[in-house]
Amino acid sequence: MVTEASRLAELVLEGDRRALARLITRIENENPSALPVMAALYSRTGRGHIVGVTGAPGCGKSTLVNELAKQLRREGRMVGIVAVDPTSPFSGGALLGDRIRMRDLAGDEGIFIRSMASRGSLGGLARATGDAVKLLDAAGFEVILVETVGAGQAEVDIAKASHTTLVIQAPGMGDDIQAIKAGILEIADIFVVNKADLPGAENTVRALQMMQRLGRDNNGPYRHHGRLMRANRVGQAAEPPGWEAPILQTVSISGEGIAEVVAAIQSHRAHLHQSGEFQIREAARIEAEFESMLRDTLLNDLLARIPTIELDAILSQVVAREMDPYSAVDRIMTIAAAEGETGPRPHRAHALEAEKPEVRR
Amino acid sequence: MVTEASRLAELVLEGDRRALARLITRIENENPSALPVMAALYSRTGRGHIVGVTGAPGCGKSTLVNELAKQLRREGRMVGIVAVDPTSPFSGGALLGDRIRMRDLAGDEGIFIRSMASRGSLGGLARATGDAVKLLDAAGFEVILVETVGAGQAEVDIAKASHTTLVIQAPGMGDDIQAIKAGILEIADIFVVNKADLPGAENTVRALQMMQRLGRDNNGPYRHHGRLMRANRVGQAAEPPGWEAPILQTVSISGEGIAEVVAAIQSHRAHLHQSGEFQIREAARIEAEFESMLRDTLLNDLLARIPTIELDAILSQVVAREMDPYSAVDRIMTIAAAEGETGPRPHRAHALEAEKPEVRR
Repeated sequence: MVTEASRLAELVLEGDRRALARLITRIENENPSALPVMAALYSRTGRGHIVGVTGAPGCGKSTLVNELAKQLRREGRMVGIVAVDPTSPFSGGALLGDRIRMRDLAGDEGIFIRSMASRGSLGGLARATGDAVKLLDAAGFEVILVETVGAGQAEVDIAKASHTTLVIQAPGMGDDIQAIKAGILEIADIFVVNKADLPGAENTVRALQMMQRLGRDNNGPYRHHGRLMRANRVGQAAEPPGWEAPILQTVSISGEGIAEVVAAIQSHRAHLHQSGEFQIREAARIEAEFESMLRDTLLNDLLARIPTIELDAILSQVVAREMDPYSAVDRIMTIAAAEGETGPRPHRAHALEAEKPEVRR
Repeated sequence: MVTEASRLAELVLEGDRRALARLITRIENENPSALPVMAALYSRTGRGHIVGVTGAPGCGKSTLVNELAKQLRREGRMVGIVAVDPTSPFSGGALLGDRIRMRDLAGDEGIFIRSMASRGSLGGLARATGDAVKLLDAAGFEVILVETVGAGQAEVDIAKASHTTLVIQAPGMGDDIQAIKAGILEIADIFVVNKADLPGAENTVRALQMMQRLGRDNNGPYRHHGRLMRANRVGQAAEPPGWEAPILQTVSISGEGIAEVVAAIQSHRAHLHQSGEFQIREAARIEAEFESMLRDTLLNDLLARIPTIELDAILSQVVAREMDPYSAVDRIMTIAAAEGETGPRPHRAHALEAEKPEVRR
């Protein structure tokens, strides 16, 4: 058991593509056999720069990500791409997307592309994405582009899990500052107005500029934070002083402006390191991930100790308003305590499902 | 202690406005003294119809909510308004908003208005809002309008916590379907194009119609769900078959179209009850709320059992990559188990902070 894990970990460190693909599939399936590998590789993570890329459907995000990857390759970087689709519960679409991309970027050992689809909850997808990024990081990919459709929580999650976040807009979507989603200032380190050859691109740029001006007057965005001890420190500066998200224009189908975006990513990275913000973001990112693992472990641990019939009965009473939820929580905590079994359940967070047969790609 | 709680509960049931205001302040401050009152009142909730109203800043949401309230009053309904601003951490702005509204709706005993501001986390705000809604429900308010700025997670939270969700758009914001946020089909029961006297209103309506058509082709939206036992049932139908969100036009400053929106809310309510969807939504809503309470209780219970120094040391090691997070979770679970104190800690979820002095309004 340990030997298979350490062998796989070794293969990942050597950049073995088949081992990477297999492990990511296990992670997606919440297969517990991935855990010792992840644990073994963890100390080898932390070198990759994680770049989140988000934008509404139709803004040309995927093409842009491909072009960014090609430019980074020209500059000699190893590039990982993780495409996350929170709207598709099955990986059918994601796989097709992979194949289309593969045709474009195929045969380059310095690029690894993987689509992630949600098997169940959004939380599960975020965790799986985080683990896939760690694997690519450990495998030596220097820049990891994490692409997701700009949709509510998924977008905020990706920003929280990235070092640099790119927000993509396209003309016709933001001719008015009101059309720009609230909260976007909060997550963007770099704005990209893609399809800049279309009419209206200048309006979109102006709207973003105006929004930035408004944001400045409002003393900047407000960030909420987690519950763990260091959370106070983490909740500080939304954007490091001295960095204002540049607004860049690209035409991804012709490659125009792509080099400038890559340069901006590198400037942002340099800025994060010089300002000390990098350590703050890293700590916040890791702590948030850790808190979420802890919460899942605790809930799973509890659920494992409460007989399903009892839980269902309590829940029914709450729904029927025969018991108030405060008393119901107390009741469940009491039952859990009485059921004994207080010891730790290793890796419950990931050991939710029985091992599934692995699908070869 | 019990006497004060039961006296306050009695006052709320009588519709005493001062008691309501005081309790909501306690809830906002996470003052544990609100808990026995909430527990006592829980069985008296479940009659009010909860209407979520969401939209981008500038769409005229607040004026629209006021007009809806006036129309509902004309129809003889008791109306509660809870205005939630997840972007403002302090209630200064919220209070000002209250005062402006009060001038408009003042002196009507059938309307209760309250702004909620976030004291800390977004999760805390969602919980406080849910509790404020329960209080208004118990106090006999028949329609409770919960208004929030359309921003990512806050919007999804409000939809999950409502029986009927109104999504407000304004011309110039959605002349293109790409300008309409992904995920909005998923949450809207009724679309309102406000400021319909402005040029472009027809384009906005058409864009919404087109998006609905696309959504239909895509087999509808995908909803994720929680971990509790009944979650499977809950994850079913996104929108009950037989209901397609109507797209209505209003001019809230003149009151045009307001009666039609109120009628649509009533139709949706009737539809929910006839189709059996109401019970499903109620169960989902209550279960999600309950799961979140349970998660918070578990985490707080754990944190109370782990010495701060130890937790901080483990966290530092994870951040420094000297310990992997999987082992760290195990370590924390082991320490917690060893620290004994396995019994339930009643109401930890809400008893986070020491009692704060109450601010009179």
